[in-house]
Amino acid sequence: MAQLTSTIRALTFDVFGTVVDWRGSIIAEGKGWENDMDWAAFADVWRAGYQPAMARVRSGELGWTRIDDLHRMILDSLLPDFGLTGLDEEKLAHLNRVWHRLRPWPDAVEGLTRLKQRYVIATLSNGNVSLLTNMAKNAGLPWDCILSAELAHHYKPDPQAYLTACRLLDLPPAQVLMVAAHEGDLHAAAAVGMPTAYVHRPNEYGPHNPKPWPEETFDWMAKDFIDLAEQLRTAEV
Amino acid sequence: MAQLTSTIRALTFDVFGTVVDWRGSIIAEGKGWENDMDWAAFADVWRAGYQPAMARVRSGELGWTRIDDLHRMILDSLLPDFGLTGLDEEKLAHLNRVWHRLRPWPDAVEGLTRLKQRYVIATLSNGNVSLLTNMAKNAGLPWDCILSAELAHHYKPDPQAYLTACRLLDLPPAQVLMVAAHEGDLHAAAAVGMPTAYVHRPNEYGPHNPKPWPEETFDWMAKDFIDLAEQLRTAEV
Repeated sequence: MAQLTSTIRALTFDVFGTVVDWRGSIIAEGKGWENDMDWAAFADVWRAGYQPAMARVRSGELGWTRIDDLHRMILDSLLPDFGLTGLDEEKLAHLNRVWHRLRPWPDAVEGLTRLKQRYVIATLSNGNVSLLTNMAKNAGLPWDCILSAELAHHYKPDPQAYLTACRLLDLPPAQVLMVAAHEGDLHAAAAVGMPTAYVHRPNEYGPHNPKPWPEETFDWMAKDFIDLAEQLRTAEV
Repeated sequence: MAQLTSTIRALTFDVFGTVVDWRGSIIAEGKGWENDMDWAAFADVWRAGYQPAMARVRSGELGWTRIDDLHRMILDSLLPDFGLTGLDEEKLAHLNRVWHRLRPWPDAVEGLTRLKQRYVIATLSNGNVSLLTNMAKNAGLPWDCILSAELAHHYKPDPQAYLTACRLLDLPPAQVLMVAAHEGDLHAAAAVGMPTAYVHRPNEYGPHNPKPWPEETFDWMAKDFIDLAEQLRTAEV
């Protein structure tokens, strides 16, 4: 695939699940809450509300709404089921911003740092700009640029989200490698002409629910970001 | 001014002239061109075309047009006057991208690094996102986030440019400090409710044409970014 590498100028990354471990981070934060709630179930249900909420924006039922606000709508709806009642607004706002405090997978910072030496590295997430900016600052993610569905007012996998990112980078899609742990994200990127890199995150939904490697292949198939950096480096030699 | 500091969460920076020395950078690059052109005059004329070109966008005469493209239009128009004819497209495109390679003022990287420890630091420039991203990578500017007039499709000093930046940071204008070496930029920021920091860059138009300190005052008046970092640190104690 050396012919692919030579044209790549920038890498855009899905973030939730690909760069950061949302589930493990929420569970870890829950340990500080001194209650016996099932934080793993809570994380899973909160996350399960994410796609349906974005679908309401995509369909036009909701006007453009940031992920922070969608997360809060979902959070408010599931508080009673988990007995999380009686929290004041400050605590609720803080809890909702746990998505700004998600922790990177162990290889992420080192892998991004390596990739940044040769390519522009940017987020391309459904997370809003402020969420991604705060997360990067908190976790030490060395992005060159924060790009988001918010800048297109279209959530991935709408093609506008990918095309807006390429336009802002002033690069044709063929020179922007989309990196994600989710096949649907990569299919949508490929549909607008971006090369694609699948990164395997088997534990996104928990260690007891491991994801198998996909049967299909993408332009690059990597175990983690360090592996991706090494593959790109080697191919270009 | 301690009461101001306690509410500041992010700093947004004008870039051309405030963070980077466009004139000195263009002159320095000219030394590699092996001709006896007056690169100082060239830089001044090129820059002088900048405000009128943005005015054509602001008035609607031109649709939204990136600074890269405005720079190229100006460059094309002044090539004959400087005898810069016969350059092929590759050389012209490279020359036009000198604005991506501008060098920071000597205090800029250290000052931004200090400010970044306590605040979100972001560009808020009329330069397009790709220009600012490439510049940061080339010059080692440690931005948390690249914000630009391009994201508003309104050039500063239009209020939309400032308000879009605050909205993307998810902060009220009162919590976002605008930093610039140009009074007009700061007046426009203040008009939408942002606090303002003037940073003195006396040599923006060359060492033989020093700019005096302004007679008016802004919320913060700093000699350079290190001085600004120190003033903000001290005020918060």
